[in-house]
This record gives sequence, C-alpha cells and structure tokens, in this order.
Amino acid sequence: MSTGATSGRLTPKGQATRDRIVAAAAGLMFEGGVAGTSTENVLKAARVASPSQLYHYFSDKRALVQAVIEHQTESVLGFQRPLLSRLDSFEALEAWRDAIVGAQLARGHHSGCPIGSLSAELSDRDPRARTELAAVYGKWEEAIRRGLEAMRDRGELTEDADPGYLALALLTALQGGLLMNQARQDTVALETVLTAMIERVRRHAAT
Amino acid sequence: MSTGATSGRLTPKGQATRDRIVAAAAGLMFEGGVAGTSTENVLKAARVASPSQLYHYFSDKRALVQAVIEHQTESVLGFQRPLLSRLDSFEALEAWRDAIVGAQLARGHHSGCPIGSLSAELSDRDPRARTELAAVYGKWEEAIRRGLEAMRDRGELTEDADPGYLALALLTALQGGLLMNQARQDTVALETVLTAMIERVRRHAAT
Repeated sequence: MSTGATSGRLTPKGQATRDRIVAAAAGLMFEGGVAGTSTENVLKAARVASPSQLYHYFSDKRALVQAVIEHQTESVLGFQRPLLSRLDSFEALEAWRDAIVGAQLARGHHSGCPIGSLSAELSDRDPRARTELAAVYGKWEEAIRRGLEAMRDRGELTEDADPGYLALALLTALQGGLLMNQARQDTVALETVLTAMIERVRRHAAT
Repeated sequence: MSTGATSGRLTPKGQATRDRIVAAAAGLMFEGGVAGTSTENVLKAARVASPSQLYHYFSDKRALVQAVIEHQTESVLGFQRPLLSRLDSFEALEAWRDAIVGAQLARGHHSGCPIGSLSAELSDRDPRARTELAAVYGKWEEAIRRGLEAMRDRGELTEDADPGYLALALLTALQGGLLMNQARQDTVALETVLTAMIERVRRHAAT
C-alpha cells in the first residue's frame, strides 16, 4: 500500500510531523469515530499549530483516513505478526487466541479492533476505504490460511481440511469476538468464539 | 424496555409522529452513523417541520438514540423471532443461517447488522447505550441457548454439550459474519462462519 503521495519526498522532520498527525488521528478516530474526529482535534492532539501543516501532508480528510487505515493495519497485524507467521499447530492457534484475549485484558477496557471499528463505520460510506479494509482482511486471512496449510501438508490435519474455509471462519469469528468484547466489556465472548472455532479445526486433527 | 418517558401519554397522532421520527433516525444512523446524523436531517427525513416537535418527544439526542436502539432491536429480533423461537434442530439452525444470509442478499447491498453497527460506534462512547446493547445481545443469546437446550433435553445433543457456550459462540460468529459482510460486500464470510459453527455444534450430535 502507498503511504501517501508526498511521503517519499519528506525530510526526517517532515516525516516525524506526518507520523505524529497520523498517530493522533488514529487514536482519536478509534475512540470517537471518523465522523466524530475534527481536524481541530487532530491538530491539537498532534501538537501541530496550523491547519496548513495538516493540508501539506493530507489533501483532505479522505487522505488522512487512508493513512490511518495503513497505520492501524500495521499496528494490528504488526502485533500479531510473530504469531501469525507461525500459526501452524494447535498450540500456536491457542497461543494466538490467548495473546488476543490478553491484549484486550491488558488495556483495562475492551475497545475491540481498530480495523473492525473502521470497517463498521466506513464500509457503507466510503467505497475506497471499504476496498482497503477488505484487502487488510484478505492479508490477515491469508496469514491464518498459510499456517493451516502447513499443518495439512505435514499431515497434522487430514486431507479433507479446507484451510481457506477454516481461515475465513477463524478471522470472522475473531472479528465478532472483538465487537462483542466492546459491548459486553468482558472477554468471554471473544475467548468462547475463538475456542469453539479452534475446536472446529480439531475435527480435522490427524489422530 | 421503556419506550420513552412520554410515550404512554401520546395521542395516536403523537405516537405516529414519534414513530416516524424514530424510524427516520434509525435509517439515517444505520447509514451514516450516530455521529453523522444531525437533528436537521432527522427532521427532514421524518417530515417534521419544527425542532420543538422533536424535543417534545426526545429531550436530547441521547433519548433519541435509546429509542433507535429499541426500534432496531425489534427490527432485528422481530425478523428472526419465528426462527429463534424454534431453533431446536440442525435443520432449524441451518434455516436460520440461510434466512440471515438471504436477508443480506435480498437487500442488494451488504449493510451488516443494525445492532452491531450501533454497538461498534457507541460501546466506548456511551455507557448507557452500551448497557442496553449488551442486554439485547443477552436476549438474543438466550433465544439461541433455549433451542440448544431443547435439543439436549430431547437427546439430540449429547450430555456434554454446553448450550450456553455454544449459543454465545453462534451469536458472536454471526456478529463477525455481519461485520465482514459489510467490508467484503459478499456473504461468503457470513455463511462460512455460521456453517463452521453449526458444524461445531454437530460434534455433540447424538448418533
């Protein structure tokens, strides 16, 4: 994904300012929604004095939202990357579940998934954002699928296991768990749905 | 749930106006989010001339949001009620899945779940709305659980089946499916996660 038209030509100081704006906007949009985040609040949170500085990096709110999607993708998939890159055993699947549940508990509040939140707010309103978010889900699903394929290739899953089907079910279950986490303010639904889906994968465990 | 402090004292005409306001607000909030829905737009969509009419029924936006949550709960659970009240066989679980997938397809676009959308937007920002939405999920989960309990009581599920666990997993999977539906603009994730979770329930099918 591109990181914005101007970023290739930024000075280190310019890049740092741009990064600060994106991080501030990502935090505000996660808490208050895209619609609930004003340019003024982004400027204040990023300690940027003049609106013209913001417009130097982002031609409009749409461009800023795109940068926020990229930032949150890196934040979410970056956190999971060490686990996602080796999601190729039942122990690894359970460790992945535990890490996700643990991260929600560690925050003290249960704020769900930054990608899921953007997706719920923007999918019907911003076709370009929707396409980008669908691509993020695609990458995420692919990482899960590769681990399951490795298990099948090693004979730990039986031949009738469909890694694509199971990966999509696991990712979709995770999204539901993170959404319910917010509403319930506990991790029970999240842990339950991931456990149940890992048990579904176990149906194909080679004995 | 209460339908608002004033509704008990409304004339039929007043009730009709109030209902029109709530339906208009529900539609606008589902499309554009709560934050993206202005009082002006609600007045226009409900064909209500004066803001004072709105404030006659709803003291503030918070009260209107509460009425919208009740309206959407009735709309979502009302649609599923005939199925939810007899979700007590594998055939019924599959028919429920097919009806949900079919409803998304019938709309032509894939707009997800009105309750899930409110939940994603409001859970972290409006504690009272969050509590109400959690209660809606609780009712929904209970309806699913009752069907699974009936299956276990009739011996169609084995004794080790945990209807509470499976019901929460099914509902959470459904929420994830409806969220992914929006981002992907197809029903594949929704159908996949529900099918996989029904297969998980089948692990307890008495043979």
